Amino acid sequence: MDKPYVVGIDVGGTNTVVGIVDKRGQILISGSIKTAKHVKVEDYLDELTALIDDLISETTTKDQIKGIGAGTPNGNYFTGSIEFAPNLPWKGVIPFAQMLEDRTGIPVALTNDANAAAIGEMTYGAARGMKDFIVITLGTGVGSGIVVNGQLVYGHDGFAGELGHVIMRRKNGRLCGCGRTGCLEAYASATGVARTAREYLEIRPDAKTLLHNVPVEDITSKDVADAANAGDELAKEIFRYTGSILGEAFADFVAFSSPEAIILFGGLSKAGNLIMNPIHESMERNLLPIFRNKVKLLFSELKESDAAVLGASALGWEVK
Amino acid sequence: MDKPYVVGIDVGGTNTVVGIVDKRGQILISGSIKTAKHVKVEDYLDELTALIDDLISETTTKDQIKGIGAGTPNGNYFTGSIEFAPNLPWKGVIPFAQMLEDRTGIPVALTNDANAAAIGEMTYGAARGMKDFIVITLGTGVGSGIVVNGQLVYGHDGFAGELGHVIMRRKNGRLCGCGRTGCLEAYASATGVARTAREYLEIRPDAKTLLHNVPVEDITSKDVADAANAGDELAKEIFRYTGSILGEAFADFVAFSSPEAIILFGGLSKAGNLIMNPIHESMERNLLPIFRNKVKLLFSELKESDAAVLGASALGWEVK
Repeated sequence: MDKPYVVGIDVGGTNTVVGIVDKRGQILISGSIKTAKHVKVEDYLDELTALIDDLISETTTKDQIKGIGAGTPNGNYFTGSIEFAPNLPWKGVIPFAQMLEDRTGIPVALTNDANAAAIGEMTYGAARGMKDFIVITLGTGVGSGIVVNGQLVYGHDGFAGELGHVIMRRKNGRLCGCGRTGCLEAYASATGVARTAREYLEIRPDAKTLLHNVPVEDITSKDVADAANAGDELAKEIFRYTGSILGEAFADFVAFSSPEAIILFGGLSKAGNLIMNPIHESMERNLLPIFRNKVKLLFSELKESDAAVLGASALGWEVK
Repeated sequence: MDKPYVVGIDVGGTNTVVGIVDKRGQILISGSIKTAKHVKVEDYLDELTALIDDLISETTTKDQIKGIGAGTPNGNYFTGSIEFAPNLPWKGVIPFAQMLEDRTGIPVALTNDANAAAIGEMTYGAARGMKDFIVITLGTGVGSGIVVNGQLVYGHDGFAGELGHVIMRRKNGRLCGCGRTGCLEAYASATGVARTAREYLEIRPDAKTLLHNVPVEDITSKDVADAANAGDELAKEIFRYTGSILGEAFADFVAFSSPEAIILFGGLSKAGNLIMNPIHESMERNLLPIFRNKVKLLFSELKESDAAVLGASALGWEVK
């Protein structure tokens, strides 16, 4: 008989969240541990295994678990390893899937956070029934999970889908965390939006805007969203600028894989139509004619607080 | 028993070439008709069917033919139709595959030229054994065929892989045939190279160059290649400029699908290292660090004169 449950693990820089998930995408129970508490990855994995065992024993039995799916920074699906993750305490290549499988006795698959989000949308969310779509995660950075012919695009080496790092400005582009300049992520991430706000305030110190109420170095994308929602014109213009660049990028993505939909996921997508309307206008204006009025722009349908665990858990259905 | 032959058809604006092909990619016999001779597509298809029947009867029998594959302008794999092809005499949507199947009694699949080239490379050429690669066709225009997980990327609507129309210059970009500005095709096609030559000669009328020997409006990419091969510095600079833009584009393509290789196909690729070296240098300089020194740049291994027919024929193995 088919096993009815999977375990989803979201490994973040601060917390690691674990959930037991059923086939309809219901999280039966969840718990968390501090990711950075343990200097040795072995100690971390021991604590994680204890939590998994606890959660399973409170809801079911181990033989009812189909697999464990983990979404991790720099997770490589092919190798099952976390490779050189800058935000985690363990350096180098960590054979995470194998180490966790050895401890739990349950097969483990892992991938990066954005790919997990894409599998989550396909399994339980906005992309149910779709075979060609792209999830764009708008958070501290910009990530992506691409699905073609119903399969996640991992590429030759497992690292495909770095759409936050296509170059949008080839001259005088902003410095990106990757060391290059002009990347989409430098404009369209939460930090990119805050940076745009600081630039706008520097160029127009006399602008009448609610953003003057926040110390300029402390401005976050949430401050900009709050101001825009209160009708602030400058804040709305910042979202128009951000959405316009995202729309340009999306038009190029469509020329590549002609998806049925592009789905926005993550913190910045909570700005709703403040960001979606300018993306839509810009994407349509920049699309090659044959693609116009064909591509759906959607918001994630995974509940924000559960999305990462649900996305990761969906990978648990695919393990062999 | 497996049927040992396929028919490949390359529908060009001027000629339509047909070949009978075996499993090793040998063309046993070929022939051609004029594409534009017939105003009515029915008359064209009747003549094409007569040619196919002739070629088959000279080499084998119809029951030994697995399928017919056709590479056509604006060919849509999903619908089997040629849709609004600007360079063909028949307007609107032509249900080419069905009409040819009705006449020949052999199943027909079609796709666009660049996708046919990609299937050809995978079946008989430089991409044998690869599951993730991109073919870039550098001809009058710039086309692409993208393979992910061993499958051609058709996208939701069958029109994926329009990589000639990603935007490389967002400000003051060249006008492209698609009506937008700054497309890769406006720089990296044969016509783009000729245009670069004219721009360079206009800016530097006193440059010492062999290109002065050709009337400026008649310069072709072949003139530029001939001059560069003769050591002409300006001509070599034109290829460096072209290759540099292609390399920038390739770096973005790698961020999307992380291919094992990018394969150059078509007229401009005959310039060899004149174009390949600057592409390679530019791509590596523009790649996200995790992708550096990983992606092979290759030339097509399909013999130029046969490539289009071979590519199309490879689709014949896939028909159901």
